[in-house]
Amino acid sequence: MVATHTHAVSTTGQGDAHDLTRAVAKAVASSGLAAGVATVFVVGSTAGVTTIEFEPGVVADVDRALEQVAPRDGDYRHHLRWGDDNGSSHVRAALVGPSVSIPFAGSRLMLGTWQQVVLLELDTRPRTRDVVIQIVGE
Amino acid sequence: MVATHTHAVSTTGQGDAHDLTRAVAKAVASSGLAAGVATVFVVGSTAGVTTIEFEPGVVADVDRALEQVAPRDGDYRHHLRWGDDNGSSHVRAALVGPSVSIPFAGSRLMLGTWQQVVLLELDTRPRTRDVVIQIVGE
Amino acid sequence: MVATHTHAVSTTGQGDAHDLTRAVAKAVASSGLAAGVATVFVVGSTAGVTTIEFEPGVVADVDRALEQVAPRDGDYRHHLRWGDDNGSSHVRAALVGPSVSIPFAGSRLMLGTWQQVVLLELDTRPRTRDVVIQIVGE
Repeated sequence: MVATHTHAVSTTGQGDAHDLTRAVAKAVASSGLAAGVATVFVVGSTAGVTTIEFEPGVVADVDRALEQVAPRDGDYRHHLRWGDDNGSSHVRAALVGPSVSIPFAGSRLMLGTWQQVVLLELDTRPRTRDVVIQIVGE
Repeated sequence: MVATHTHAVSTTGQGDAHDLTRAVAKAVASSGLAAGVATVFVVGSTAGVTTIEFEPGVVADVDRALEQVAPRDGDYRHHLRWGDDNGSSHVRAALVGPSVSIPFAGSRLMLGTWQQVVLLELDTRPRTRDVVIQIVGE
Repeated sequence: MVATHTHAVSTTGQGDAHDLTRAVAKAVASSGLAAGVATVFVVGSTAGVTTIEFEPGVVADVDRALEQVAPRDGDYRHHLRWGDDNGSSHVRAALVGPSVSIPFAGSRLMLGTWQQVVLLELDTRPRTRDVVIQIVGE
């Protein structure tokens, strides 16, 4: 009924994106469940998970839009607290959100052909990310 | 325990929005489940699902805010790839997200009175959208 | 398999944020379930739920970014409908989204150390919010 997978991803820092679709599909297949929901959740407050057409142009376009909303070199109250430089990362992560929920049926993810599940690294430095793939179904 | 519904919606292009609440409520009712979560997910990378007060003013206001974040006539790296003109759609969809999860109990969605589940069409042309309503519960 | 909790929060209006992590952890613990997903959902269309590092700097930074995307004193079509003044609230809520889904295993939420589940009040006036914590698991 519930299968828990964790998936580690090494990133290069803000603007980096990783296609998680294969890892999620494998987690669904190995769960033996036919139908349900795969919740993909990134541990940490400076990364996000969403779906995009995973190609370098879209990845760059999303990064540029986030740069407008929360410029990397902007002034952030968060910087005053710990001397961090990643206020932009926290704001971007709050807006993108840490999780996406993907239905599956017939043991297959119900994604579009050009729709991939992606981890967006939003932190200003390289990170190793733990992504939880939680499968709930029957 | 799991009931899968798909719901097709014809849209008129960017800025169009459709109230999915009735379809989601019907899917919950027909599942025979009393309590659980309805995951509403749009297949494709140029649309989004969220909740709003569904009235034309809010729909227009959301569209205008997205136009600021990702202008329809802006330059996008995605356009260089396939000659597409919908870079703004991809960016908007990544930010809004493809899914929302709505709890239900007593076989009723736990939404506010002025809170509807909506499909936001973000693509630059009319589309037919498949929305998956995945009910998991008991 | 399913446990439903509701949690009331009194807020002071736009920019206010509340850490829900303890309430969600308690709901998971009291459910007696070992593994699954906690869906945290705010009832209403002028608030949002996401995860952030819950400290006043990040809360203020997120508020400022949302002010750029949807200025409180901007003109909104929604204002023309009921004489409301909270068009900015509706737009912000549509973008942040009403729900987040947090996996748990070993009866513990799989959050990062600096990652909290938060309610963002986006309305222009104080509100009492009902947050639904829906636990689905085994």
